[in-house]
Amino acid sequence: KSDAISNSNPFEAKVDSILNLMSLDEKIGQLNLPSSGDITTGQAKSSNIAKKIEEGKVGGLFNIKSVEKIIEVQKIAMEKSRLKIPLIFGMDVIHGYETTFPIPLGLSSSWDMNLIKQTAQMAALEATADGINWTFSPMVDISRDPRWGRVSEGAGEDPYLGSEIAKAMVQGYQGDDLTKNNTMLACVKHFALYGAPEAGRDYNTVDMSRIRMYNEYLPPYKAAVDAGVGSVMASFNEIDGIPATGNKWLLTDLLRDEWGFKGFVVTDYTGIEEMMYHGVGNFQQVSAQALQAGIDMDMVSDGFLTTLKKSVEDGTVSIETIDKAVKRILTAKYKLGLFDDPFKYCDINRSKKEIFTEAHRSFARKVATESMVLLKNENQLLPLKKSGTIALIGPLANTAVNMAGTWSVATKQNVSKTLLEGLKTVAGDKANILYAKGSNVDYDLEYEKRVTMFGKTIPRDGRSDKQLMDEALSVASKSDVIVAAIGETAEMSGECSSVTNLQIPQAQKDLLNALLKTGKPIVLVLFTGRPLAIVEEDKDVPAILNVWFSGSEAGLAISDVLFGDVNPSGKLTATFPRNVGQVPIYYNHKNTGRPLGNNEGKFEKFKSNYIDVRNEPLYPFGYGLSYTTFQYDNLKLNTHKINRDQSVEVSVDVTNSGNYDGKEVVQLYIRDLVGSVTRPVKELKGFQKVFIKKGDSKTVTFKLSVDDLKFYNSNLDFVSEPGEFEVFVGTNSNATLKDSFELVQ
Amino acid sequence: KSDAISNSNPFEAKVDSILNLMSLDEKIGQLNLPSSGDITTGQAKSSNIAKKIEEGKVGGLFNIKSVEKIIEVQKIAMEKSRLKIPLIFGMDVIHGYETTFPIPLGLSSSWDMNLIKQTAQMAALEATADGINWTFSPMVDISRDPRWGRVSEGAGEDPYLGSEIAKAMVQGYQGDDLTKNNTMLACVKHFALYGAPEAGRDYNTVDMSRIRMYNEYLPPYKAAVDAGVGSVMASFNEIDGIPATGNKWLLTDLLRDEWGFKGFVVTDYTGIEEMMYHGVGNFQQVSAQALQAGIDMDMVSDGFLTTLKKSVEDGTVSIETIDKAVKRILTAKYKLGLFDDPFKYCDINRSKKEIFTEAHRSFARKVATESMVLLKNENQLLPLKKSGTIALIGPLANTAVNMAGTWSVATKQNVSKTLLEGLKTVAGDKANILYAKGSNVDYDLEYEKRVTMFGKTIPRDGRSDKQLMDEALSVASKSDVIVAAIGETAEMSGECSSVTNLQIPQAQKDLLNALLKTGKPIVLVLFTGRPLAIVEEDKDVPAILNVWFSGSEAGLAISDVLFGDVNPSGKLTATFPRNVGQVPIYYNHKNTGRPLGNNEGKFEKFKSNYIDVRNEPLYPFGYGLSYTTFQYDNLKLNTHKINRDQSVEVSVDVTNSGNYDGKEVVQLYIRDLVGSVTRPVKELKGFQKVFIKKGDSKTVTFKLSVDDLKFYNSNLDFVSEPGEFEVFVGTNSNATLKDSFELVQ
Repeated sequence: KSDAISNSNPFEAKVDSILNLMSLDEKIGQLNLPSSGDITTGQAKSSNIAKKIEEGKVGGLFNIKSVEKIIEVQKIAMEKSRLKIPLIFGMDVIHGYETTFPIPLGLSSSWDMNLIKQTAQMAALEATADGINWTFSPMVDISRDPRWGRVSEGAGEDPYLGSEIAKAMVQGYQGDDLTKNNTMLACVKHFALYGAPEAGRDYNTVDMSRIRMYNEYLPPYKAAVDAGVGSVMASFNEIDGIPATGNKWLLTDLLRDEWGFKGFVVTDYTGIEEMMYHGVGNFQQVSAQALQAGIDMDMVSDGFLTTLKKSVEDGTVSIETIDKAVKRILTAKYKLGLFDDPFKYCDINRSKKEIFTEAHRSFARKVATESMVLLKNENQLLPLKKSGTIALIGPLANTAVNMAGTWSVATKQNVSKTLLEGLKTVAGDKANILYAKGSNVDYDLEYEKRVTMFGKTIPRDGRSDKQLMDEALSVASKSDVIVAAIGETAEMSGECSSVTNLQIPQAQKDLLNALLKTGKPIVLVLFTGRPLAIVEEDKDVPAILNVWFSGSEAGLAISDVLFGDVNPSGKLTATFPRNVGQVPIYYNHKNTGRPLGNNEGKFEKFKSNYIDVRNEPLYPFGYGLSYTTFQYDNLKLNTHKINRDQSVEVSVDVTNSGNYDGKEVVQLYIRDLVGSVTRPVKELKGFQKVFIKKGDSKTVTFKLSVDDLKFYNSNLDFVSEPGEFEVFVGTNSNATLKDSFELVQ
Repeated sequence: KSDAISNSNPFEAKVDSILNLMSLDEKIGQLNLPSSGDITTGQAKSSNIAKKIEEGKVGGLFNIKSVEKIIEVQKIAMEKSRLKIPLIFGMDVIHGYETTFPIPLGLSSSWDMNLIKQTAQMAALEATADGINWTFSPMVDISRDPRWGRVSEGAGEDPYLGSEIAKAMVQGYQGDDLTKNNTMLACVKHFALYGAPEAGRDYNTVDMSRIRMYNEYLPPYKAAVDAGVGSVMASFNEIDGIPATGNKWLLTDLLRDEWGFKGFVVTDYTGIEEMMYHGVGNFQQVSAQALQAGIDMDMVSDGFLTTLKKSVEDGTVSIETIDKAVKRILTAKYKLGLFDDPFKYCDINRSKKEIFTEAHRSFARKVATESMVLLKNENQLLPLKKSGTIALIGPLANTAVNMAGTWSVATKQNVSKTLLEGLKTVAGDKANILYAKGSNVDYDLEYEKRVTMFGKTIPRDGRSDKQLMDEALSVASKSDVIVAAIGETAEMSGECSSVTNLQIPQAQKDLLNALLKTGKPIVLVLFTGRPLAIVEEDKDVPAILNVWFSGSEAGLAISDVLFGDVNPSGKLTATFPRNVGQVPIYYNHKNTGRPLGNNEGKFEKFKSNYIDVRNEPLYPFGYGLSYTTFQYDNLKLNTHKINRDQSVEVSVDVTNSGNYDGKEVVQLYIRDLVGSVTRPVKELKGFQKVFIKKGDSKTVTFKLSVDDLKFYNSNLDFVSEPGEFEVFVGTNSNATLKDSFELVQ
C-alpha cells in the first residue's frame, strides 16, 4: 500500500485544526455532494449552487465539464465561504475522458494490465487538465448476468481477473503520488455486489450467502482497497436485506475494520433518499443510518444537509460520528493538495494542450484493437484484403455517436470517425467501399428511441423497411464481400438498460439473413455492450468480430483489425450464453452432485442438464481467436508436491503455428478437487499476454504460490487446505491440457 | 404438535432394549435404504436384496409396488434375519396413489386446504392398503423459477400458502394417529432450498443469504415439522457451500436444535455418493460427514453400509452417533406399529377393495376441477354449450398416459380417460365431438422422445407435419368451436426436466396459429407443469383454461369445466412471466430503491425496469377467473391501531355479480411499510375459498394477529416491529382495495 494513501494520516494535525474552527453546519456541509445543476460559463456566481457554497454547505461537485466553470465555482468557495475550504470536483470518467477507450467490458477483454493502467493514467491526465480531481471509477462489480445493462461497465465475471484490473485502474488513476496534478482520486464502485441484481434488472434486489460474497464477488473491491483506492461508492442494492448505503456491516465492519480502508465513502446518486423506497425509515432516519453505517458523503440526496443537525440535536447522531466523516473528506482534499493550491487542477493551458491530442487518440486506437474479440473466422475470411469492393451494411455502419459506448460523458461524440469513414481511411484508394444502412436499429421506433438516448440517435430517414433492405441487397450484389455492422446501439447497455432478450434486434437479424441469402461472404462486425445470444449467427455467418463499443477511435481501430493491420487478440471476460434461459452461466461454477457425464451436449436423464439446450455456453470465458493459430505443448510442473512455504512453477510451450504474427493470452486455471466447502470446477489463477512471431515458440512460465490456492472457508477465514490440485493451461477456460500437484500439511 | 410424533419418545425403553442386542453391523444395516432392484412376485427370496435383508443390512425398501411382494420381502426380514426387525416400506406417493390427483402445483391452485388434506388421506389409504407405510411427500420447496422442472411438484412461490399446504399434507398422510393402518409416515422434502437452483437447472448450485432462507424459503419445511412430520429428506443442493446431505448446521443446528424435529432424516437418492461429486471428500469421508451432520438413513448410496464400520474403527465416528440414528429409525418403526405387527399394512383384501375405487375416482375428478385455472375468457366463450360440433385438436387431446402428470409411479396410466373420451362422455349425445391430432408434440423427434419418457409416449403415426395440419384444418372447418389441447407433455416438467424456453413447443404454436386463422372461436386447453410464457396466446386466443396435469380423472374433469358442470375457481400459486428473461419474477418482491413509478408498463429511465419488456408478469400470483364475476366492497378494519396483544379484524363484502354460482378465493395481503430489514411489497397473510350463489353477497372476515406481522430480522429473531401496515384484499395479488393500521409498542 502507498503510505500517502492508506496508512496513518499525515494530515491529521492540519485536519484537526480546521475541524476545530468549523460549526456543525459547516461540518455537515463538507459531507454534501449536491447536483451542480445548470452552470453556464461565466454564470456560476448566480447559479443555484453558489449560495450553498458561500454558506459552506457543499463539500464538492460533480460532472461539471470545463476548467473555466470549475475555476469559477472554486473561487466562490475560496472567496465567499467563511472557512475557504476548497471543493473537490468529481466526474464519471469511466473509460477515458475526451479520448475515449473501449467500454470497460471491452477493455477487460484485452487482458493487458499495463495497457489498462495506461488508459486510466491518460484519463486522469486529461480529466485533471480539465479541473477534475476525482473519478467515479473503477466499477469492479462482478456480474454473471448479461441481462444487466451495466455488465458493459465492468470487467466481466471473474474475481481473479477482476481484481487485477481493479488494481491496474486504481494505480493508473492515482499513480503513486496523489499530490501530482495529473493524477486523481479513484472511487471503486459499487460497493458491493451491485452486479448481481435479481433477474438482471438494474437496481433490483441482490441476495447471496456470505461465503459467495467473500469468494466470488468481493475480491475486486478488496483488491482496489489493497491498491490504496482513495474513495468507495456504496451501491444501490440491499445486502442481507439492508441497503448498502445504510449497511454498517458492509461499510464499517468489513470495509474499514476487516480490510483497513482509510479513505472516504460516498453514496451513489440519491442513495440515501432511496433508502426510503427500500423501506427502512423516514428521511431523517435513513440519513442518520447512512452516516452511522459509514457513509461520509451524500451524493445529491441532501439528506445529510437537511436532517443531520436535527439528529445531532435529538441525540440520534453524535458529533464524533460527524467529525469522523468530515475528517475523511478533509483528509482527501489534503491528499490531493487542494489546501495548498485550490486551483492546482485548473491550468487552462493544460486543458488546451493535454486533452484529446493526436498522441492520445493514437493510443486509444491501439487500445481499441486490443479489446476486440474474434469469435469466428471460417476459412480465414478475415483479414480482408485491401482490394476489390466491400459492401458495408448495417445501422451501426455510419454512426459516429455510437462508437464510444455508454457512460462517456466527456466524449465529443461527433468527432469520432464512423466505421464507414474508418474503412475508407484505412483502405485508402486500394478498395472500393460501398455503404447501405440496410435497416433501422429496430422495427419499433419507440424502442429505438429508448436505446439511442443521450445524443446517440441514428436518424431514420423516412424510407420504409423494404426500401432500406432493397438498397442493401443492391449494394451487396455489387460487392466481393459484405461487412455487416450490426448489433446493439451504445445505449442498449449501460445504466438502466437491462434486457430480457439477448438476441440481436429482429430488424437487424432479418437484414443479416437476407444478406446471407446472397451467398456472398459475410463478416459480422458485432457491436455490443454485453454477451449476446448469437447461436444462429454463429451457425450461419462465416466470420464474426466482436468490437464492443471501442471508444473515440473505434471506426479506425475496427478497420485496422478487419484489414489485418492488427491481428486481434482479445479474449472474452464474460461467458456468451446460447440463450437467455441459461443465465447465469459462468465458467467457474460448482460441479454439483450430478454433473453431466459428457461434453457432447447429449441429454442425460437425472444429470444436471436441460431438456432443451446443452449445458455449455456458446463461447466460454477466455475465448477469442486470432488470425494465426497457437499450439500448446509440454505442460510441465517443477514439482508435484509442495508444502505451505513452497510454490509450483508451471510452464508450457506455445507455438504460433499459423501465418500471422500475433498475441496470445495464455491462461492458467486450477481446480481444488476436495474442500471443506465445495470448490469451482475451474478458477483462473494466472494469465500472460505474449507476442509470438509466426513459426516461433515461447515457453510461458507461471508461479503458483499457496496464496493462489486459498479460499474463504465456512468461518470466512482465508485458508489453503491440503489435497490435490489440478492445473490447466490453454487458450480459454475450456483448457484441457492438465497436470496436478498435491499440497501437503 | 401431536404427542405421539414429536415429544418425548414413549418407545425409548423398547428401542433401547433392542439396541442393546444389536451388533455394529446390524445397527448400520438399519440405516440402509437400498434400491430394491427387480423383485418379481414370488421371487423375492432369490432377489439380489434378499441376502442383505437376511444379514440385517437393510432398514427399509422403497418403490416396491404390490402388497404381495412386500409381504414376501417383510417375511425375509421376520423369518431369516437374526433380530427380526421389520422393514419400513417407502414409495414416491406424490399426488395420489393409483387414484391420482393433480400434480402438486395444480393441487395448490385449488387453495382448498381441506381438499388438499383429503387427497393426502386418500393417498395414504390406498398406499397403506398396498403395503406402503412411508411416502416421500410432501415436497414443499418454494420456487420462483419456472425453468426448474420440479416446480410442478411444489406448491408454488409463496411461503405462507406453502406452509399451509405443507401442514395439510402432513396431517393428511399421518392423521392424528400413526398406529392406524390407513395412515402413513410423511417425509417433507427436499430439505432445504432445493427449489432455488441456479439458472433453473435441476441439481444445480443453490445460494442465498440466511435472512432470505428464514423469511422466504424455510417456512414450509418448518410448518411440516411443526405439524409433526415423521421424516425429512435432505436435498441434493449445497447450502453455504456444503451439500445439504452433509450440512450439520442445516440438519442438526436448525432442524433439531432450533426447530425441535424428533423424527429421522433420509438422504435423497444417492445423496451421500453425490457428495463426492460436490467435492467434499472420499466415500468414507462423505459417509461419516453425512451421519455426523444428521443423516439417519442412506438412500441407495451404500455409503453407511460399506464405510461406517471402518469409520467407527478408526475413531472418526462414534458409536453414540450411530446409536442416535438407529434409535430414530427404530422409533419410527415403533410409531408405525411395525414391531407389533410387521404385516400391519399387508392386508390383501384391503389392497383389492380400497384402491382406485369408483368413490375415489369420483373424488379425484372433483379435485381436478378445483385445480384448473381459467386464464382468459373473452366474451364468455366458456363454458361451452353441449350442442353443435366441437373440434378437439392437438397432440394432448387423445393421450391417456399424459393426464396424470409427472411422478405418478402408482398410476395405471392407460386406465385414464383421454380428453377426447372425457368430452364425449360428458357431452353424451348432445354435441358432436370431432378430433384431429393436428401436430406432434414437437418437430424434433429426439426432443419429443425425451419428454415422453416413462411410458408417456404419444405415438407418431407416420404422417407429415403438413398432413397433420391439413387434417386439423379440415376438422376445424366443420366445427362451431375449436378446443385446442396443447402445451407440455407430462414429462416436460418434473425431475430433471428443466428448460430454458418457456414457450409452447413451436409445432403446437404453429398449429394454434393456423387454427386462429380459421376465424373460428378457440378455447385453449393448456397442459403444463410450470408457468409458461404465453404472451402471444394470451393476446390472440379468446379463452384459455390452464388444466395442468390433473390426475387420473383429468379427461372427465376438464370436460366438466369446459361444459360448465363445474365453474373453475383455481388461482395461480406461481407467477406466469411474460418471457424467460424476466425470471425470477414473483409477487412478494422487495420494492428496491428505484421502483417504477407507473403501472402502465411505460419505460422510465433510471427506474428499475427493462428496456424491452414491462415489469409486470403476464398473470400474477393468485390470479384466476371464474365463469361468473366477483365484486369486492366495504373493506373494513375493526381498529386502526393495535398493540402486541391485540389483533385486527379485516372484513370485506364479496358479491357474485355474474351469471353463475361460483367459488372465489378471497386473498388478504399485507405490506409492512418500514422495517429494520427491507420488507416485501406484498405478503399473503390470509385466504378463504367461499362459495357464493349468483347475485348473493358474503362478508368475508380475516383476523390478523401480531404473529402475522412477524418476520426474521438481521439477528434471525422472529419479531414484529411497530409501525404502519397496509392491508390489501382482493381476487389476486394485484389487489388494490386497501386500508392500513398501526402496530404500537
